[in-house]
Amino acid sequence: MSQKVAVLGASGYAGGELVRILDGHPAMSVVHLGAHSRRGEPLSAVHPHLAGGERTLGANDDLPDGIDLVFLALPHGASWEIGEKLTASGLPVVDLGSDYRLDTAERYQEAYGEPHPLPARLGEWRYGLPELFDLSGARQVASPGCYPTAVLLAITPLIRAGLVDVASPIVADCLSGASGAGRSLKENLLFGSVAEGVQAYAVTRHRHRPEIEMAIGQATGADTTVVFTPHLVPMQRGELATVTARLSSTSSDQEARAVLSEAYSGRPFISVIDSPPQTRWAVSSNRAIVSAFVDHHAGVVIAQAAIDNLVKGAAGQAIQAANIMAGLPEETGLPLAGWMP
Amino acid sequence: MSQKVAVLGASGYAGGELVRILDGHPAMSVVHLGAHSRRGEPLSAVHPHLAGGERTLGANDDLPDGIDLVFLALPHGASWEIGEKLTASGLPVVDLGSDYRLDTAERYQEAYGEPHPLPARLGEWRYGLPELFDLSGARQVASPGCYPTAVLLAITPLIRAGLVDVASPIVADCLSGASGAGRSLKENLLFGSVAEGVQAYAVTRHRHRPEIEMAIGQATGADTTVVFTPHLVPMQRGELATVTARLSSTSSDQEARAVLSEAYSGRPFISVIDSPPQTRWAVSSNRAIVSAFVDHHAGVVIAQAAIDNLVKGAAGQAIQAANIMAGLPEETGLPLAGWMP
Amino acid sequence: MSQKVAVLGASGYAGGELVRILDGHPAMSVVHLGAHSRRGEPLSAVHPHLAGGERTLGANDDLPDGIDLVFLALPHGASWEIGEKLTASGLPVVDLGSDYRLDTAERYQEAYGEPHPLPARLGEWRYGLPELFDLSGARQVASPGCYPTAVLLAITPLIRAGLVDVASPIVADCLSGASGAGRSLKENLLFGSVAEGVQAYAVTRHRHRPEIEMAIGQATGADTTVVFTPHLVPMQRGELATVTARLSSTSSDQEARAVLSEAYSGRPFISVIDSPPQTRWAVSSNRAIVSAFVDHHAGVVIAQAAIDNLVKGAAGQAIQAANIMAGLPEETGLPLAGWMP
Amino acid sequence: MSQKVAVLGASGYAGGELVRILDGHPAMSVVHLGAHSRRGEPLSAVHPHLAGGERTLGANDDLPDGIDLVFLALPHGASWEIGEKLTASGLPVVDLGSDYRLDTAERYQEAYGEPHPLPARLGEWRYGLPELFDLSGARQVASPGCYPTAVLLAITPLIRAGLVDVASPIVADCLSGASGAGRSLKENLLFGSVAEGVQAYAVTRHRHRPEIEMAIGQATGADTTVVFTPHLVPMQRGELATVTARLSSTSSDQEARAVLSEAYSGRPFISVIDSPPQTRWAVSSNRAIVSAFVDHHAGVVIAQAAIDNLVKGAAGQAIQAANIMAGLPEETGLPLAGWMP
Repeated sequence: MSQKVAVLGASGYAGGELVRILDGHPAMSVVHLGAHSRRGEPLSAVHPHLAGGERTLGANDDLPDGIDLVFLALPHGASWEIGEKLTASGLPVVDLGSDYRLDTAERYQEAYGEPHPLPARLGEWRYGLPELFDLSGARQVASPGCYPTAVLLAITPLIRAGLVDVASPIVADCLSGASGAGRSLKENLLFGSVAEGVQAYAVTRHRHRPEIEMAIGQATGADTTVVFTPHLVPMQRGELATVTARLSSTSSDQEARAVLSEAYSGRPFISVIDSPPQTRWAVSSNRAIVSAFVDHHAGVVIAQAAIDNLVKGAAGQAIQAANIMAGLPEETGLPLAGWMP
Repeated sequence: MSQKVAVLGASGYAGGELVRILDGHPAMSVVHLGAHSRRGEPLSAVHPHLAGGERTLGANDDLPDGIDLVFLALPHGASWEIGEKLTASGLPVVDLGSDYRLDTAERYQEAYGEPHPLPARLGEWRYGLPELFDLSGARQVASPGCYPTAVLLAITPLIRAGLVDVASPIVADCLSGASGAGRSLKENLLFGSVAEGVQAYAVTRHRHRPEIEMAIGQATGADTTVVFTPHLVPMQRGELATVTARLSSTSSDQEARAVLSEAYSGRPFISVIDSPPQTRWAVSSNRAIVSAFVDHHAGVVIAQAAIDNLVKGAAGQAIQAANIMAGLPEETGLPLAGWMP
Repeated sequence: MSQKVAVLGASGYAGGELVRILDGHPAMSVVHLGAHSRRGEPLSAVHPHLAGGERTLGANDDLPDGIDLVFLALPHGASWEIGEKLTASGLPVVDLGSDYRLDTAERYQEAYGEPHPLPARLGEWRYGLPELFDLSGARQVASPGCYPTAVLLAITPLIRAGLVDVASPIVADCLSGASGAGRSLKENLLFGSVAEGVQAYAVTRHRHRPEIEMAIGQATGADTTVVFTPHLVPMQRGELATVTARLSSTSSDQEARAVLSEAYSGRPFISVIDSPPQTRWAVSSNRAIVSAFVDHHAGVVIAQAAIDNLVKGAAGQAIQAANIMAGLPEETGLPLAGWMP
Repeated sequence: MSQKVAVLGASGYAGGELVRILDGHPAMSVVHLGAHSRRGEPLSAVHPHLAGGERTLGANDDLPDGIDLVFLALPHGASWEIGEKLTASGLPVVDLGSDYRLDTAERYQEAYGEPHPLPARLGEWRYGLPELFDLSGARQVASPGCYPTAVLLAITPLIRAGLVDVASPIVADCLSGASGAGRSLKENLLFGSVAEGVQAYAVTRHRHRPEIEMAIGQATGADTTVVFTPHLVPMQRGELATVTARLSSTSSDQEARAVLSEAYSGRPFISVIDSPPQTRWAVSSNRAIVSAFVDHHAGVVIAQAAIDNLVKGAAGQAIQAANIMAGLPEETGLPLAGWMP
């Protein structure tokens, strides 16, 4: 007895990935594909790689009856209104966008440079990072950004365990494949602009920084300052967070990794390893591969997490949350093996 | 009641891909991983991307009791001896290698430049391309090479339908990602030798050419001459066959594609499309995407097939054959959706 | 005493490459950079990789006085009018576009699907492939397309030498890096659409096919039929032509390569080698690396040429022609070494 | 009147790049190519991309008479002995290796985990980063590592200007293309191991960290602690340093960039820009593109430098030093324009 789900924003990369994974899910069926500008096109034209291409994209605002859960994979700013309607209707929702992630109007203004249209709702949705936040009983879940996912999985357990000097800035240098920037037509996303080169972007002003600080605070109680510098790397998928934090006292590789292993004990998607995580090992799976290294010379810990930005960083994590909301094992229908070579 | 299967040669790219797919197969369980030089290592060291990394690689020649079927993913020349033993023991076998693919000692000598050690066995195994060859009742299957798979899927139905002038050479220019060359340490497989460049290799003397001519002959009765030029392309996976053949009479895009559509009607893995197939749409799936274009100016047809060389070109097709051997639907446990972006 | 040259269309990839090479040219100085939509921008904004970024792009139609030669690197259809004016003014011109390449109104209609606006001018410009066509005394040069350059360099000497059966179609399967498609914003040129995949495009109807047949005819006197299938490969630069033609009589690798070596004897940019040319060896240089392979089994010759599509296939070859027009050695200021790794 | 130079270790990537640039140098001629295992091979077999491929590689220890300067591009540990002989003979030498870079036996032991064979020589050679160290009168130059070059160019002027709190650890997260790891046959350098993935390596223990701290100390007088984490990125060339340091007092983007601009005023190879540097703009040139960003929220400055690891990070910088040693303008014969697309 499968859950009937809708995917709104099915034409983007994250939407396509939701369909790809849900098509193989044993307890969920996609019964509605919503789109905006590509409404009316067959799925085969929008995502030629997907099976069942004869399905047609419908409208985002034209949900059929009998839906059990809705995934929103809409552009920034396009979720809050439909999210509000769905909440009112009592339908469970997982929003992959950023409209409901932050906790206060001030933080939203800081991150996005404009006021939130519905500030009273901020903080009402649950932050959907299941390994760090309890989602039991959740009805509305705001799925985390890809960068916050990677950074938090790497550093949060070490902060919780008291290893990190939270008074010093935490430096999060992150690397992402091009799909993290979405499918829009911009010169800086051309093959000719991305291949054979690397660069940082949005230095000092990326909107995920306030989200990271908020989520660390909620997960650990610590008030941290994060320096977040994202970089665009010439690969399709994959995201690596390299998080450098001052130690509060002496520690060791073994101790730091033991903290990670204990924090993620029993969690199917987190692998703690003894060497630097390679993003490709995680690509196409919902896995996060994490490790930590203590630099005795500088008195810092370097914690790393590698994920697929479109799976654990977006569609997969949203389905993981939906599984929990539906009372299913969190790993139901989610890929565990990566893609190498 | 799952079939218990063994994967010998589990440390290579094709072996890893067998494990990746079989781990999600609802009716087969991998109960033995065989290796040669990497025997004794944990799977996580050999294939860090796979789940269940705590499994250990055993020996290729140390099969446990109770095995129902064996996959051989061994280097060229390493299959015939173990294949002979397994055949004698009555176990069903699918060999992904080339030892049992060809039909005669002459053809083997032509392809490999040396005599086959067991020429009497040549022709006894079934050629495992299920869309073109009947595998019902098969016990020993020689799974086709990646290039023959792509070339045959593109051109065979057009030859069968009489569209092709088989007296003229058929030109098969094929493009493959680097994983097609395997995991060996060679300078020409370094990132520094592959990225940002393209070149042909084994021009006029690639060993898949005799296999292609043999299989076309067996599938169509036609005695063809094939010019086969493979090219190495800077991508991990994916293979595209561009096959140019003289027409026997006037034809059209529509007619050629209708022949393909009819030939593959009801086959779950073949998509016939109206535009040039892109390999990425097939990558990580067992799909082949095919099309054909009639060039009225030159009187030729250009038939194309795009596959994932490690899935439809190797591990996936082998599992497809094993499904048929086990009486299962051929698509059981095999991925239908590709990987984009 | 340097020639003063202007580059119109300086904002595209070919225009930028003209500036890059001319900036190091000992006998030419770029004194005017023309642009259309990016007029008024500093060069550093348009081509951040170039030196002298403080130069400003002017207008395409606002040439300063004292220019000695003009390079046109304009989009298709934008050259004929300005070319006509420049011709009338007596200025030497090298057009990298296609407006003046073809010889007849019929051929233009066939290639571009519309009538040429100035059909009387067709055939008046010289076809600027210096290794195959004499450019002495030329004042207006139409620089060849990148694909025709590669295909002609590979096969023309073999046709001239009588090795090729010109009554059979010649199959030219060509592979190009993404810069060959230019800098325009199209979804199929996004990193997410190009990386990790390969596909053909414009199958049976690419506009370079009539140009190839025309140029082969002019260079050899032979009336040939060419099947031309271009493929987009995930690399920035580089182009490989794999040209398969029936032999008119038996031949050998040695004979075919000797024909190539003799044809290009004394030409600084053509290297004849005994193995398949790799495009990367040619990238960033004006070199073409060629070879040929005789397939005795099928009675065909496979001739190959590797070039940098933006250098020998565009900007470099145009400068080579300009050198000849200016009475300079053809190799003046042109790079001979490629880029590896 | 050209200087006669020898390149020892000509078969590696850095050696090939020395030959590529020196072949176009107006005042230096390569008269000897030295190699070890590839001695006796033609240059065309070792570096098919270079012009003049008919030249033959000789022995590293068989210098002809009349040499004016020697470049050493040998593996780690192979320079000190030949460097000692050349010094004794009075010949000017530029060593691209690490044998003579460090200043003390202790630092060498810390970096390389073994004693230096000639500790008395440490500190005698000049550290060849011309923008930060005076090389006038130098006879023996140790050319910096690629990572130290990028990190120092980004952060040193800011430390000199007093903007940086040198008591806090400086975090240098660096990204390098695969050519930085050299041409050796290792599984982690296969295309199948590098493409479509990213990972850190040598975390907390890379040998360039002591070199960075030494050089910062020599250039600024400050005793700093550096956290250095290098990452391997799927591109051939290019290196980006992202250096995060605590500010000693409030500052601004404008102030930080003004410090950089002043420090590099008049230096032909350094471009200070207002946006994040992209490595591709520097690739194939000797340029370093630098910028800085002040993060008021965290009280840090993020300084970045993009270089070509084989040019400014190796061969180009060595030639720049040799130019100075020879009394030539430092930019003589060195490329200023990068490679885009």
